[in-house]
Amino acid sequence: MRIAIDGMGGDHAPSVVVEGAIAACKEYGFEIVIVGQQEKIEAELGKIKYRGSKVEICHASEVIDMHELPVASVRKKKDSSINKLVELAKNKKVDAILSAGNTGAVVCATTLGLRLLEGVERPGIAIVYRGLEGISMIIDIGANVNAKPSHLLQYALMGDAYSRYILKKENPKIGLLNVGEEAAKGPEFIKETHRLLSSTNLNFIGNTEGDELFNGKIDVIVCDGFIGNAVLKVSEGIAEAFSELLHRKLSENLLTKFGALLSMPAFKALKKEVDYAEYGGAPLLGVDGICIIGHGRSNSKAIKNAIRAAGESATQHVNQHIIEAIACKKELA
Amino acid sequence: MRIAIDGMGGDHAPSVVVEGAIAACKEYGFEIVIVGQQEKIEAELGKIKYRGSKVEICHASEVIDMHELPVASVRKKKDSSINKLVELAKNKKVDAILSAGNTGAVVCATTLGLRLLEGVERPGIAIVYRGLEGISMIIDIGANVNAKPSHLLQYALMGDAYSRYILKKENPKIGLLNVGEEAAKGPEFIKETHRLLSSTNLNFIGNTEGDELFNGKIDVIVCDGFIGNAVLKVSEGIAEAFSELLHRKLSENLLTKFGALLSMPAFKALKKEVDYAEYGGAPLLGVDGICIIGHGRSNSKAIKNAIRAAGESATQHVNQHIIEAIACKKELA
Repeated sequence: MRIAIDGMGGDHAPSVVVEGAIAACKEYGFEIVIVGQQEKIEAELGKIKYRGSKVEICHASEVIDMHELPVASVRKKKDSSINKLVELAKNKKVDAILSAGNTGAVVCATTLGLRLLEGVERPGIAIVYRGLEGISMIIDIGANVNAKPSHLLQYALMGDAYSRYILKKENPKIGLLNVGEEAAKGPEFIKETHRLLSSTNLNFIGNTEGDELFNGKIDVIVCDGFIGNAVLKVSEGIAEAFSELLHRKLSENLLTKFGALLSMPAFKALKKEVDYAEYGGAPLLGVDGICIIGHGRSNSKAIKNAIRAAGESATQHVNQHIIEAIACKKELA
Repeated sequence: MRIAIDGMGGDHAPSVVVEGAIAACKEYGFEIVIVGQQEKIEAELGKIKYRGSKVEICHASEVIDMHELPVASVRKKKDSSINKLVELAKNKKVDAILSAGNTGAVVCATTLGLRLLEGVERPGIAIVYRGLEGISMIIDIGANVNAKPSHLLQYALMGDAYSRYILKKENPKIGLLNVGEEAAKGPEFIKETHRLLSSTNLNFIGNTEGDELFNGKIDVIVCDGFIGNAVLKVSEGIAEAFSELLHRKLSENLLTKFGALLSMPAFKALKKEVDYAEYGGAPLLGVDGICIIGHGRSNSKAIKNAIRAAGESATQHVNQHIIEAIACKKELA
């Protein structure tokens, strides 16, 4: 297994990327190619005194910043780490690629460079997370902010395939994020998507409101990238605010402080359970290759786990299942 | 102050509505008109042995259920509690109305019955909540799932007026919910809204991502009702899942259980701080009258606090300020 990673991508690059890469290399035995400005990456490798042969550097002189416009930056910065990363996948030099950099740029470069799978209209980013009763996923969380009903239908098909073959769910329950349970509710493009999904063989359970995202009763939640991204960011914001508030309240007097101290193992276990860093990155589904998108705020553990996720995707041949699902739907239509 | 309340609205109506109404009547001295099926409401009043003169019943034979389609049910059920409620406001028999029933039906009946304020194109539902550093509001959370840029601009103007005159903020910071901070990001209708907002005298701070909703740095968050509703429901879902997970982890062994017991005052204080029931209902802004929408899951405390919010809105003349803000913007345009 050989995985290329964007050494310059993410708020804390290149240091955490290099640390995560070395950790993944040691733990999973993968070969890693770190793409980016050679001197900077060498300096980081020097700091952690890595002396193995499983990590190599692929030099890329340019960096696409987090706030650059995707299409323009991908076109302009030909020698950026993101473009070089995609080139490695295109030329079959690696089995999977991973970047925690500018998400829009990664989506754009990957779509242009690797092309879409046969029949796929738009790629979608999926996030896998732990709800109260188990693992769920949501697609799309930001690849496509102008989703049409046909795109959403394909997200459902891709999510179903991922859920079956990577998450090992038998008959994944698919839900459509909407403002109410009734088919007649919501904006026109969501109502049309409801009609499309009802006509498939998918285990479509209908509309779902956001409060069901975390109870684990739905395996695949389908939404457009605009709403999916907002939902994701809001979840992060509220989890942080809740933790901070709890911390403040617990620090208010000696008794509650002592109680908090005794309860610490529970807090640590909870933190581990809700920590995105445990779950690795988000697969970009629909492209002809394996591309994992890391969170911009990734720490080295998140990078390590995202590399693990990239390896898993590469061995499970999820793309072949996606092609079949889309082709089968096309025949029915 | 005389306030009419939908006795049949909400998951736990009429019992919690009657309880909340009596509590508000005692605490704030308001006169309350409970609208709904007389026998059922009398039975509830009998249970809590209320013997005052400040509560009266206005009979309405029909009930619009939570899952009925708004426009059709409002048209068909002329003698529903929601239609009767709006009639009371229209005929100036009460200063404000409140319902925890079918949100779409309340929006529809109120818009048809009371009409919109001069210059307002669409009403919007605002939610006021506590973030880490203070009170914020978000508008719209579900009145309008097909918002156009001009509607979003008006939501910003209405939110600004509400924030100034009800929440007493000096120069409210207005943010537009989007997938990134840059003006060039997001779907077309959001980019156009960004341009419109930038041309006003509002204290527009630009796009905001969902993770900033709860840090209290933005006073008014503007979004369309589809995304606003999803964000609201997701927030509820994650807060519940987080509490449940914490509870499970704390119950895992004797030591953490004992710690949790000592920390109980902190948990109770936190619960109070994040409990929507403390903040009352959500004002429907833009209609010519005062209409407060309660959460479907309202308990009696939530109803009591929503009645308080209705009373506050009625005394602060926020509608006059909204009319002026919209007229002033029209002149500029």
